[in-house]
Amino acid sequence: MALNPNLRLYSFVGGNRGPWRTTKTVAIIGEPLPATERLELVGGNAAAIQPGVEWVLRGVTSNERYVTRPEKSELLASQPALGRPGADCGVLIPIKKNAAWWAFTQDERRRIFEDRSHHTQIGSEYLPAVARRLHHCRDLTEAEPFDFLTWFEFARADSEHFDRLLDRLRASEEWRYVEREFEMRFTRASTGG
Amino acid sequence: MALNPNLRLYSFVGGNRGPWRTTKTVAIIGEPLPATERLELVGGNAAAIQPGVEWVLRGVTSNERYVTRPEKSELLASQPALGRPGADCGVLIPIKKNAAWWAFTQDERRRIFEDRSHHTQIGSEYLPAVARRLHHCRDLTEAEPFDFLTWFEFARADSEHFDRLLDRLRASEEWRYVEREFEMRFTRASTGG
Repeated sequence: MALNPNLRLYSFVGGNRGPWRTTKTVAIIGEPLPATERLELVGGNAAAIQPGVEWVLRGVTSNERYVTRPEKSELLASQPALGRPGADCGVLIPIKKNAAWWAFTQDERRRIFEDRSHHTQIGSEYLPAVARRLHHCRDLTEAEPFDFLTWFEFARADSEHFDRLLDRLRASEEWRYVEREFEMRFTRASTGG
Repeated sequence: MALNPNLRLYSFVGGNRGPWRTTKTVAIIGEPLPATERLELVGGNAAAIQPGVEWVLRGVTSNERYVTRPEKSELLASQPALGRPGADCGVLIPIKKNAAWWAFTQDERRRIFEDRSHHTQIGSEYLPAVARRLHHCRDLTEAEPFDFLTWFEFARADSEHFDRLLDRLRASEEWRYVEREFEMRFTRASTGG
């Protein structure tokens, strides 16, 4: 039976190609990824074995797992698109949560995620400056090294706002369950660069 | 980067092999799958292109998405294992829910799933007679034809109980959001048969 490609699947390809040039990487917790010169975002499933490719991270955009209807309406109203002119700063943050997190039930995770860590609320304070796309990796066919990949885009002028967003999230109760986190920062390279 | 196989991934292989012999199929709603003589359950990702294989359905066991802690504790206490001696009836039910379901937020889905449709409550009434394993397909690398695969095992003497379980779930509000459902029944075949 022929299957259509999954249109919600994206691959982040670390190597020597792509419009995003690495400016900084920070190993927040756990093992870092090998450094690469560039990053390419590819729709669909990119092969890991290609010349010049160091690693590939895959994830699918999915239905929201925690937000309520009023929160979703607020997000939809103010969420900017990726690829805006001027939003030349890109940040990729892969995260893996620990076994304790995944042993929680949905209501327990929601209580930590929003009622006590205010994840959606904090994120919404940085809209529309910071565009964001969340990708889930945990249920893919292959076991991926991270559970989530979040991709952010913003203008250079908003870099300090973005740093503050990360600080606040990392100080939250939810982050006690993060066992691996690697931060990669990029700028959109000029052609041929 | 080498990835480990996903240990939570299972493939259901419809073809001319495997211990489960098809006894009946029912197209509940939407397009049926091609009929096959046998079914094989395989851990991991089975190739679809093999001699004698008609179709492969894949899914991962995942964290529960709707149950609360008291419901989970009750389930864990009474949930039987697969492969019990005497549980010679197997049923595979792939389901696809419609776009309206997936546009709901988590709390809206939970309200329909449990508060109004009593899915977990109804299922728990048939424990420990009916063993069950739920597989999620929606977020796999390839777009799968169904969102969920549920596999059931029970003794022949419990067949009528099982029929009643299906009738009750299909009469629930949650099932209004099912746009494709195909029921396949099997018995464990004797060796070589």
